[in-house]
Amino acid sequence: MLTTDDPLLRRHADGRGVVTLTLNRPQAFNALSEALLDALQAELDSLVVDPTLRVVVLAAAGRAYCAGHDLREMRAEPSLAYYQQLFARCTKVMMALQRLPVPVIAQVQGVATAAGCQLVALCDLAVAARTARFAVSGVNLGLFCSTPAVALSRNIPRKAAFEMLVTGDFIDAEEARRLGLVNRVVEPQALEEETERLVASIVSKPREAVALGKALFYRQVQAGMEAAFADAGQTMACNMMDPAALEGVQAFLDKRAPSWR
Amino acid sequence: MLTTDDPLLRRHADGRGVVTLTLNRPQAFNALSEALLDALQAELDSLVVDPTLRVVVLAAAGRAYCAGHDLREMRAEPSLAYYQQLFARCTKVMMALQRLPVPVIAQVQGVATAAGCQLVALCDLAVAARTARFAVSGVNLGLFCSTPAVALSRNIPRKAAFEMLVTGDFIDAEEARRLGLVNRVVEPQALEEETERLVASIVSKPREAVALGKALFYRQVQAGMEAAFADAGQTMACNMMDPAALEGVQAFLDKRAPSWR
Amino acid sequence: MLTTDDPLLRRHADGRGVVTLTLNRPQAFNALSEALLDALQAELDSLVVDPTLRVVVLAAAGRAYCAGHDLREMRAEPSLAYYQQLFARCTKVMMALQRLPVPVIAQVQGVATAAGCQLVALCDLAVAARTARFAVSGVNLGLFCSTPAVALSRNIPRKAAFEMLVTGDFIDAEEARRLGLVNRVVEPQALEEETERLVASIVSKPREAVALGKALFYRQVQAGMEAAFADAGQTMACNMMDPAALEGVQAFLDKRAPSWR
Repeated sequence: MLTTDDPLLRRHADGRGVVTLTLNRPQAFNALSEALLDALQAELDSLVVDPTLRVVVLAAAGRAYCAGHDLREMRAEPSLAYYQQLFARCTKVMMALQRLPVPVIAQVQGVATAAGCQLVALCDLAVAARTARFAVSGVNLGLFCSTPAVALSRNIPRKAAFEMLVTGDFIDAEEARRLGLVNRVVEPQALEEETERLVASIVSKPREAVALGKALFYRQVQAGMEAAFADAGQTMACNMMDPAALEGVQAFLDKRAPSWR
Repeated sequence: MLTTDDPLLRRHADGRGVVTLTLNRPQAFNALSEALLDALQAELDSLVVDPTLRVVVLAAAGRAYCAGHDLREMRAEPSLAYYQQLFARCTKVMMALQRLPVPVIAQVQGVATAAGCQLVALCDLAVAARTARFAVSGVNLGLFCSTPAVALSRNIPRKAAFEMLVTGDFIDAEEARRLGLVNRVVEPQALEEETERLVASIVSKPREAVALGKALFYRQVQAGMEAAFADAGQTMACNMMDPAALEGVQAFLDKRAPSWR
Repeated sequence: MLTTDDPLLRRHADGRGVVTLTLNRPQAFNALSEALLDALQAELDSLVVDPTLRVVVLAAAGRAYCAGHDLREMRAEPSLAYYQQLFARCTKVMMALQRLPVPVIAQVQGVATAAGCQLVALCDLAVAARTARFAVSGVNLGLFCSTPAVALSRNIPRKAAFEMLVTGDFIDAEEARRLGLVNRVVEPQALEEETERLVASIVSKPREAVALGKALFYRQVQAGMEAAFADAGQTMACNMMDPAALEGVQAFLDKRAPSWR
């Protein structure tokens, strides 16, 4: 049972370096209030320098995943300067997720709308319950989901993204998977188990290879082909000199399991 | 029944600001003759400054949607200078569709080939009859569909686009939907009804939010991630200061319908 | 039966200008040893200036398509300088495939992993046997598939690419088709026949149109919209002045087959 001193953002770490951050404003559909954004930023600032971190799971408490910004707060004292810093703050959280040196998995158990849908799009991977639904619905209130559009249009085909943004309509989890917004869809009761399957796969790999691979992935995807290859080639050469890769390749040749710490 | 003084491009406006432009050279499969390109440009030049405009539907008369350029005209007096200005003129029409401050919906009832397929790809949204078919078939005549490639390769996956361009083969409406070239596929008799569903959704939103959202969408999609977020954040802050958004958000908090004009 | 003097890379040319290059290290799962990379580069250097070339098919002997780099060779004398030049050499082969003035079709009969999967992604088109499978599995050894990521992330949606790269898991041929990594999937016994269908379509088109179209395709896809259209318009104007296009369009107007050589 939730109590008033329950934190906005729950943090659970296991012995493997798997940290689960759980959005915990279920009564407010986990809307991203300034306090919740700050809590997320603080966690990410601490996680980014944690050498034992291996995976982050971004989960949510209650029936909704995340309803986007906190509209009551946003409406309280309107000013351009306030909104500029609010969206800049939100973007900083989003970019911090992408800059973590470990994969971030959205574990989506319910409705994800507006900046909540953006969170899912921004995560490296996403697993959804069959009952989850997704929308960038700000346009219904006259507020086009411009920042969510950045992440969404880099996940799904252009016309599908435009339709979601301009109609505000929901898509279901299966359609989200078909379009590329989520990786896997399972029955609600199997959600954590399916996330754990991805987690287990990731933690079985050397941290350094995943870290440099994730960073390279997002650098190269927005570069031209030749610059992308030059960057990737250099990254791979450095990766290969890492003791874990040298041991991994040797173990493969010896037909044995690698001995990584 | 069509008569000789029937215009090349029919225009129908309703009381909601929904303008339907209908390509009307059915005997020529609505090929984009210079006169038809001029008629389209003239309409778009007038629509872009019409403050009552809300949606444009780009429809076509007869059995074909659009067969691309008018080949008889193109072949009449070949010269590099002529072709340069012809393709520049066509590109100007295409970019004008994308620069309209309202969504443009292709309503595709028949075959769309070459620059006709480009029209579909360039529109923000597309609804197709199940019997519609799509090809970039210029290569069959030795004329690779280079300008259609620009729009097509920004709608569908790379290898699928390359295959269409190099084989000239048709894909059917269902495959076009699967790949991302069209949003929805319906039985031919339900085509206008399905388009109207999208139209009704769009006109129920404030014009300003849709206008700034559409412009932002195409700016950010070709920017790097950080530049895209900076632009989107600024756009969203301005959007939020708009009276329609302030009222929309307030109405949501008050659990009532927004009173927009 | 293979003998020791069987070449690493078999080359077969037919009278139509269709060259099939067959990776021929079946015992080593066609791993890209330095010698095989050199053999590929030498063939591509000779093919790029062959005016009779129309299509290249990249096939493989044995049960695997290509297992990526030759790990035994890679592990022999580790040094950063060596790895830098190795990946640069591999990238040079990949870019040479994309710079050929004719389409390159990957004909995938078996498992394609790491740089083998990259080969498939880099080819313009790909046909796969239903039993083929694809993975970027370097991460399993601690070596993130950074250079394969460049090609893969330009073929399939972002989250799907990230999942393959970070888990190292296989996808089957049908999923590869759904995601956009291959164009067509057929029963193993129909693989060559299906490739021949694409080949026959391509050789029936004028060489020049395909050549300028392929080059334009890869230039425009990484440019902004306006630069892309400017390039494409200029390309199409030049294309239209080519005798083959003038004849192709005239033949269409005359309702006859074009007489191309």
